[in-house]
Amino acid sequence: MAHAKASRSEGVIALDPLDMRDRLASGALRAVDLATGCIDQVKRRETDVQAWAWLDEQHVMAQAGRLDTLRKTGHPVGPLHGMPIAVKDIIDTHGIPTENGTVIDKGRVPTEDAVIVRKLKAAGAYVMGKTVTTELAYIAPGKTRNPVNPDHTPGGSSQGSAAAVGAGMVPLAIGTQTGGSVIRPASYCGVVGFKPSFGLIPRTGILPQSPALDTVGVFATSVAGVAMLADVLCGDDPADPATRLSAPPRMLATALSDVPVRPTLAVVAQMPGDTPASEDMTLAMQELSGLLGEDAFALILPQLFDEAAKIRERINFAEMAKCYYAYERRGRPQLSDVTLAAIDAGKAVLARDYIAALDWPKLLNAALDEIFDRCDAIICPATPTSAPAGLSSTGSAVYNGLWTLCGVPVVTLPLFEDATGLPMGLQMVGRRGNDARLLRTARWLTNEIKDTSGVMTDV
Amino acid sequence: MAHAKASRSEGVIALDPLDMRDRLASGALRAVDLATGCIDQVKRRETDVQAWAWLDEQHVMAQAGRLDTLRKTGHPVGPLHGMPIAVKDIIDTHGIPTENGTVIDKGRVPTEDAVIVRKLKAAGAYVMGKTVTTELAYIAPGKTRNPVNPDHTPGGSSQGSAAAVGAGMVPLAIGTQTGGSVIRPASYCGVVGFKPSFGLIPRTGILPQSPALDTVGVFATSVAGVAMLADVLCGDDPADPATRLSAPPRMLATALSDVPVRPTLAVVAQMPGDTPASEDMTLAMQELSGLLGEDAFALILPQLFDEAAKIRERINFAEMAKCYYAYERRGRPQLSDVTLAAIDAGKAVLARDYIAALDWPKLLNAALDEIFDRCDAIICPATPTSAPAGLSSTGSAVYNGLWTLCGVPVVTLPLFEDATGLPMGLQMVGRRGNDARLLRTARWLTNEIKDTSGVMTDV
Repeated sequence: MAHAKASRSEGVIALDPLDMRDRLASGALRAVDLATGCIDQVKRRETDVQAWAWLDEQHVMAQAGRLDTLRKTGHPVGPLHGMPIAVKDIIDTHGIPTENGTVIDKGRVPTEDAVIVRKLKAAGAYVMGKTVTTELAYIAPGKTRNPVNPDHTPGGSSQGSAAAVGAGMVPLAIGTQTGGSVIRPASYCGVVGFKPSFGLIPRTGILPQSPALDTVGVFATSVAGVAMLADVLCGDDPADPATRLSAPPRMLATALSDVPVRPTLAVVAQMPGDTPASEDMTLAMQELSGLLGEDAFALILPQLFDEAAKIRERINFAEMAKCYYAYERRGRPQLSDVTLAAIDAGKAVLARDYIAALDWPKLLNAALDEIFDRCDAIICPATPTSAPAGLSSTGSAVYNGLWTLCGVPVVTLPLFEDATGLPMGLQMVGRRGNDARLLRTARWLTNEIKDTSGVMTDV
Repeated sequence: MAHAKASRSEGVIALDPLDMRDRLASGALRAVDLATGCIDQVKRRETDVQAWAWLDEQHVMAQAGRLDTLRKTGHPVGPLHGMPIAVKDIIDTHGIPTENGTVIDKGRVPTEDAVIVRKLKAAGAYVMGKTVTTELAYIAPGKTRNPVNPDHTPGGSSQGSAAAVGAGMVPLAIGTQTGGSVIRPASYCGVVGFKPSFGLIPRTGILPQSPALDTVGVFATSVAGVAMLADVLCGDDPADPATRLSAPPRMLATALSDVPVRPTLAVVAQMPGDTPASEDMTLAMQELSGLLGEDAFALILPQLFDEAAKIRERINFAEMAKCYYAYERRGRPQLSDVTLAAIDAGKAVLARDYIAALDWPKLLNAALDEIFDRCDAIICPATPTSAPAGLSSTGSAVYNGLWTLCGVPVVTLPLFEDATGLPMGLQMVGRRGNDARLLRTARWLTNEIKDTSGVMTDV
């Protein structure tokens, strides 16, 4: 079957993030050597890929050196000790520019870290640099190019994060998804993207676009990688009403464990809406269904889901009109037409319709609950096509927005490629709150395919 | 100084609820004797007061008898064992009519208890009956009359609950407040009313009018009484996103404890808006300030609070337009003009303005936090006047809505009366989340005044 080969490099940066982490912890790998490997790869690839909004080699080497010293002097070593992390440029970083993808915020330097940046630092990781976002994390493209083929879009809005991991410049990256801003660029760039359940990861200190939808997500080259990073970021935050106090989901430990029984997958070949999957994607899904045999059954999503795109957009635009009010007031001429059109559409939404739209996730999840009683996960294409040619659009998020609206956990696996060698993701969806189980199923499927076809070695 | 004397009766039902509870627990008082006392008082007062939407003597006696049997056979005794509770008729009760104050719901009998009804049953209490609410808990009056003077309104919307306690027909009652629906009727009926912090008591199974504002509150003849009932009702509810997992606030234990240092109170004599307090209320507040001397200082609320009424109304009407959509659709001709006017106003609210309004509680609480750094509680009139004459209006909630919007805990104490002998409440406001401390301060003030003037014996 078709399969992805993300353009990756040799040496230390080719390791699985989990392996890196373990070697860093044992002292077999120094943080400065990993940092050097990453910086060398940046020097090789960044001219083509343009993933970084801010990157300072001295900062990287200083952080890595500091962490090596801590380890050597017997200080406690966090679960991500010495790991460099790429952070989307809508996530506040103390003392490091955070410009939200707009010239309106040119030169903006936060005086506080976002809660998740504090969490990654507390885990012993460091901010390698800030990655390019579309304008205000909506759809007007930034400068980033697809790491597999620079004539193609990397997707958006977390384009720099997906491309940086895809190009092997950094092992782990953080992004956000309000429509399809994690899963789509991950699919296009040939990496694993993970959007956890809504409310799992706190958002304080991150540019709010649509608080009912905004979800932090992560990128890596493996399922273990995204699980490892997500574990560190999740938790309760009194300032983020979407979060709740709950036991840590232990995603990495679960993802690495064996499935207790052979999973059953529900295959959605035709997604709701008017955008059919490309021939390449359709063939890849058919091939995968064939491989799965009796482990899979065909699923048609309930008709309710036909409304999901419209409902999600209503919420997104109404909240955008409110959240971006100050940007529009002081910088309307500096904003793109697509952003302004969304804000203007949002201004016209009535409160009653908006509030009614907020009830939909409950309805949709009730429908999904019945489906998840019969399967371990839903699988479907992550995107209708591979990354479209050109940089003027970030492609279609129509296969992602419905899951974002539901707040369910979603992971995309770089299992496919099109006839030209561009990667395409398989999207896997779990029950809301069952993030760890979804990642376990994802890792099982990845290994299953590897065993079956003998070609999947890099996921 | 002027003071209230709620029309109360003799015998067992004249006891403080705390005393009732303790005697029930020890066996010194049987639940059936308390029930008989309540039913006898209903027979004396209900014709005048009209507090009950549903009351069945056989049900009451059966519940009381069952609880006596449980106690006598050595079953565990809950913290409210044998206590009858009046429940506002917008709160679902399994097998007991719940008609939401509208003929549209005539004959509606829920098949499930609201979460708080399950909680009160688990605590060993029982539903004595359902109390009259205004239409859909908005302002169109129900049939209830003021227990002190039946020519006057009891206030609303929790009018039956306040009047039933005020008339001595039941020791404890539950209501809800979206504007001033607990504090206002408590002030008019001469009882203690307590609206806890937003999110403390779960609302699943209660008619939603405005989920960003709707707050469950309680009525009793004493601060200990409201603390005792609120303790039992509070807790986390996954189905109510306003609640959070947290330690029990232990309101009764704290309310009964001594203040660690002599409290300081901030006196707001002139509330924001265009409705000045009556001469009687102004004099009462002045007299109280005089008594408090150096324990109090005069406070003018920040200008920000001038907007609070408008902001609260915007949220309330927009959410009402959404929540009452089905009522309007199937029963528009059966709804009052005031309810329809509010719904129609709500339909015109734009999503952006509504979402922006939801930010106000944060701003207002930031301003309040600075005030609460200088005092233990804010005190102000609970209502501009005593209960207005006539039943066509439920009076003004303009002194209550701003606190509901903030989500802060509020208690009203029946400390005043006007020249005609009608009660008037002193409203006491605490920092959000500091409910137990507020009740301790309220109990301290009640005792302080009793010691000073020698007249306060019944609070």
